[in-house]
Amino acid sequence: MNVSVVGATGYTGYELVKILANHPEFEIKCLVSETYEGQLFSDVYPKLRNICNIKIIGRDYEAVAKESDAVFLCLPHAAAQDATAFFYNKGLKVVDFSADFRLKDKELYEATYNVDHNYPDLLANAAYGLPEIFADQIQNAQLVANPGCYPTSVITPLYPLLKEGLISPEGIIADSKSGVSGAGRKASLAFSFCECNEGFKAYSIFNHRHNPEINHILKDTGNKTDVLFTPHLIPASKGIESTIYAKTNCDLKTIATCLKEFYSNGRFVRIYDNGHLPSTADVTDTNFIDISLFVKDDRLIILSCIDNLIKGSSGMAVQNMNLMCGFDDTLGIL
Amino acid sequence: MNVSVVGATGYTGYELVKILANHPEFEIKCLVSETYEGQLFSDVYPKLRNICNIKIIGRDYEAVAKESDAVFLCLPHAAAQDATAFFYNKGLKVVDFSADFRLKDKELYEATYNVDHNYPDLLANAAYGLPEIFADQIQNAQLVANPGCYPTSVITPLYPLLKEGLISPEGIIADSKSGVSGAGRKASLAFSFCECNEGFKAYSIFNHRHNPEINHILKDTGNKTDVLFTPHLIPASKGIESTIYAKTNCDLKTIATCLKEFYSNGRFVRIYDNGHLPSTADVTDTNFIDISLFVKDDRLIILSCIDNLIKGSSGMAVQNMNLMCGFDDTLGIL
Amino acid sequence: MNVSVVGATGYTGYELVKILANHPEFEIKCLVSETYEGQLFSDVYPKLRNICNIKIIGRDYEAVAKESDAVFLCLPHAAAQDATAFFYNKGLKVVDFSADFRLKDKELYEATYNVDHNYPDLLANAAYGLPEIFADQIQNAQLVANPGCYPTSVITPLYPLLKEGLISPEGIIADSKSGVSGAGRKASLAFSFCECNEGFKAYSIFNHRHNPEINHILKDTGNKTDVLFTPHLIPASKGIESTIYAKTNCDLKTIATCLKEFYSNGRFVRIYDNGHLPSTADVTDTNFIDISLFVKDDRLIILSCIDNLIKGSSGMAVQNMNLMCGFDDTLGIL
Amino acid sequence: MNVSVVGATGYTGYELVKILANHPEFEIKCLVSETYEGQLFSDVYPKLRNICNIKIIGRDYEAVAKESDAVFLCLPHAAAQDATAFFYNKGLKVVDFSADFRLKDKELYEATYNVDHNYPDLLANAAYGLPEIFADQIQNAQLVANPGCYPTSVITPLYPLLKEGLISPEGIIADSKSGVSGAGRKASLAFSFCECNEGFKAYSIFNHRHNPEINHILKDTGNKTDVLFTPHLIPASKGIESTIYAKTNCDLKTIATCLKEFYSNGRFVRIYDNGHLPSTADVTDTNFIDISLFVKDDRLIILSCIDNLIKGSSGMAVQNMNLMCGFDDTLGIL
Repeated sequence: MNVSVVGATGYTGYELVKILANHPEFEIKCLVSETYEGQLFSDVYPKLRNICNIKIIGRDYEAVAKESDAVFLCLPHAAAQDATAFFYNKGLKVVDFSADFRLKDKELYEATYNVDHNYPDLLANAAYGLPEIFADQIQNAQLVANPGCYPTSVITPLYPLLKEGLISPEGIIADSKSGVSGAGRKASLAFSFCECNEGFKAYSIFNHRHNPEINHILKDTGNKTDVLFTPHLIPASKGIESTIYAKTNCDLKTIATCLKEFYSNGRFVRIYDNGHLPSTADVTDTNFIDISLFVKDDRLIILSCIDNLIKGSSGMAVQNMNLMCGFDDTLGIL
Repeated sequence: MNVSVVGATGYTGYELVKILANHPEFEIKCLVSETYEGQLFSDVYPKLRNICNIKIIGRDYEAVAKESDAVFLCLPHAAAQDATAFFYNKGLKVVDFSADFRLKDKELYEATYNVDHNYPDLLANAAYGLPEIFADQIQNAQLVANPGCYPTSVITPLYPLLKEGLISPEGIIADSKSGVSGAGRKASLAFSFCECNEGFKAYSIFNHRHNPEINHILKDTGNKTDVLFTPHLIPASKGIESTIYAKTNCDLKTIATCLKEFYSNGRFVRIYDNGHLPSTADVTDTNFIDISLFVKDDRLIILSCIDNLIKGSSGMAVQNMNLMCGFDDTLGIL
Repeated sequence: MNVSVVGATGYTGYELVKILANHPEFEIKCLVSETYEGQLFSDVYPKLRNICNIKIIGRDYEAVAKESDAVFLCLPHAAAQDATAFFYNKGLKVVDFSADFRLKDKELYEATYNVDHNYPDLLANAAYGLPEIFADQIQNAQLVANPGCYPTSVITPLYPLLKEGLISPEGIIADSKSGVSGAGRKASLAFSFCECNEGFKAYSIFNHRHNPEINHILKDTGNKTDVLFTPHLIPASKGIESTIYAKTNCDLKTIATCLKEFYSNGRFVRIYDNGHLPSTADVTDTNFIDISLFVKDDRLIILSCIDNLIKGSSGMAVQNMNLMCGFDDTLGIL
Repeated sequence: MNVSVVGATGYTGYELVKILANHPEFEIKCLVSETYEGQLFSDVYPKLRNICNIKIIGRDYEAVAKESDAVFLCLPHAAAQDATAFFYNKGLKVVDFSADFRLKDKELYEATYNVDHNYPDLLANAAYGLPEIFADQIQNAQLVANPGCYPTSVITPLYPLLKEGLISPEGIIADSKSGVSGAGRKASLAFSFCECNEGFKAYSIFNHRHNPEINHILKDTGNKTDVLFTPHLIPASKGIESTIYAKTNCDLKTIATCLKEFYSNGRFVRIYDNGHLPSTADVTDTNFIDISLFVKDDRLIILSCIDNLIKGSSGMAVQNMNLMCGFDDTLGIL
């Protein structure tokens, strides 16, 4: 399979290229970036010198479509709409990293992102790319909307429990924390070293765009949730930890069994019910999600850790593309 | 006033000595540490060379009592009981940093810390050292129990709101995060650089000893709370951030007014109701507590930040001692 | 004394304001910043809320001159020339943080900074602001050029040794390392958290502008040096460490005695000849310079540590202004 | 090939197991650790759960020898002598990570490490494991002494230049910096988070044990060097940067050509002569060594970066074992 990456020079692009460069079935054809056109990818990321020395091209989507069977789009929301439609209509398989095709509800999308959605038909055809939950839809999709990083850490443990009715859909709180790379690769005072180092803070109180995404996807369990999601910034490059509070009538064993069974085929989901305290350090640079469960009286605490750029983005994107191409979802992902 | 510090070489001792060395009314007489007996304080902490070159003495409490009007005890819980009683009975003013005199309820203390309490009479006489709340008791006390760092960040914003009945006492969640110095100064694999760096994790789920302290002190508001407290470890040296979730029927203005009025004389309490996002970086190396308030529908989110070693420990201890000595609580604290 | 700060919102401005706010003789009148005009200083730096709430003004130098006896200029090189001349001609005492008045040699300045120098007369009148070395000139100066941070760490230990002929002026190497704040407060990809964190690198090989400054000032010892200076970037916010290699015929005791005697009145210079290994952590947030000496055969290694923003900039600037105003140089500096 | 690791639970052991778990020709048989006997490797390193769940065994060298064709010894110096002899005499291929077989000169070893060397015959048979330099000896060796991390970063660039006579053997200085993992995995106050974070310091001035190793190996070029080596501690987990100063009569092109030709078959050696500034961040978690060259007048500056645990230890160990087993040295190393 010939694959290309549009928006290749951000942090998700970097992680994606690193995985693709060692993938047994995908061959990288085009890396697209307007900013770095004409440079080698390894000039932008010297870490990959001798691993990916491909020359970056500018925004020539016709050329990309001609050379590629599939494309990964690492573009900002809104900007991704047209590109997605373009490649989709050319017959390419598309994994879109943006939020543009995650919310099936056009009105919700437009209210959340404050832009029009110009491709409602495509919305209807897009699968939401949590491969351990929606493998069936993903396998048959030509377009997959790659989930947000925070929602991945929150939805993965909650989905089976809500579906099986083991927790209350009401009053769930997800107190989440992310490393700085979640803000992307850019010149910004707020994310400069001295402003982030030795600091910890909450942000986007009551209004982060991943909050509607979480509740929207969880509706699929047959419940109406009002998960309250609060993101924080960790003084670290990578990693997301979500501490999730829910009400339950079940004991720890029932909760744990439900998750273990639901994810029995998910090699990347590691579930703990033995008091293990997962750290973001245990999942960074991997595609694992570590989930640890604690119950006391009627309260359930879930600790959930991922690498925001891999399981929360590029690793999952490759899982999705693997499924779309008929491969095992774990192929090429260490 | 001649003051001494017992257990002077931990991180709280260091911060305490740094404040005392520049205090206009306190003169440091004895610094006690069994481990570092005979060394200069500035050998242990080269940062204070030329600022505090006092020679550390061993555990000679008689000598300390003879030379001092007041003493700060930076000892582990249980170990602090006898020392506190000794100095108290000699007539010294005592600020005890341990948990030994924080919980007035002997049974609760013994259940929480799994040791006997041998001085129930002293318990009754000890004031809880949150100077912005309990100044009256502190001023008249000979013994003050310096609060835990986490409880300081949680109780300070909650106390007035509960007292005034502006929030529900039920279902409060405090999701707290602390820098590594909270674990103390010691050789420990778990707190070594490589184990903490670039990691973030929760710990002591459902069973941290500061949880009973929070609920015990909040009882004083006339409410029975069941605050659920979850601590996490930040890859930073200092700082505590608590994200606190509560239910309220009030609007933001009412909430903010209550706190601003209650703390109108508290120079170190900075309250924000304008969307400001406080960072631990804004309070480290200071004695401030930054509190920011957010209300949506019936949900209140409080963000609360302190330096765990200063406002959460040594700065507050000096505030307490100032009050016990009849000074303004802010004296000598920048 | 009424003092003002032009270019107040960078990191050096912040540290300067923090010192001035607690200084017993200086009162801050104007804080100037074009970018943040109209905001409170504590809006830009919330850490100083309740400590410095002064409203920032724009570039109204006439107003500044009218209200101030002295001014600190924290402007980029070249931009500082006109401002310095303006305030100098109005009769204000001026400490200029830029490089514009450090190099007495107009040609050297112009070759190094690639701009014209329009005030050669002022150059002749400016004192170089290393207060422990050039106190006499500083006391009598109306204009002081505040030294570069790296040169401070290198010149302080070398100056007395060269002057007394204890080391060879030839073949000296200064391998220096600085925290990220040395790059200033700005939006920049190169200094973003994820680009700096967990990395260490050299930069400006053979061509850093502080290299001519070092050799230029050391000429004053009567020697022609060709110090080779190599800067590196530490993944930390603050601190400079310089490892300096020189040839000597003297033993450790002779070297140490020379420095101790030369700096016998310098409260902020701490000299070690007992094998102590200084860390940047021991000087950050202080105005100290820690110098440790090692001799083996004919080789001398000097380890020198400062806080780049304090002893390497704002703390030293206050020392200089103290001297210019007839105060003890240590006044108001903890 | 069946391989085992003795001393598997340190940081080098962890990196080694991570590589071996994905190696196409090596199968891990035994992981030995006295401290963690009976636990799963993934209990000690949860990051490797589902990747290496092997149960750790205690010090049963007979069992290890019986099951293994080759063994990696990650033991402290001195302790490694007997273990090496044991496995060697059983006919296993041995890569020893300690310093015990690096210095062919028994007296130098004993003077440097202050212990007796009990196996002088083995010393004579051991190859020094820099695969890009000593491949011939390594291929034919049954015992390889894996180099020190610092020496790897210093010898790799210097060896060809000294051999070809392009630089002077006199007066070379290597100013090196390492992340904290170089100190190993252990409970230690000096390497605790709060003691290392936001600090930078030199250590082992004039007396680090890697200094004799550097000069000893460089003798092989036909020159007697007196490289002066100074190590420093970076507040980062991983990475070594060495800034190396030498005298040369050659221009940049000659220097660069020499290195490029010498390492033309070394996939892991990346040489820059275009002003590129290598960062430790560009090599961490890889087996690359990045070398950048700068010449001005008669001075050469070499910047050299490696991951101390991979190219500086476990990655190189696998390269060595690959060669000893007749494989391409790069096999199984991404």
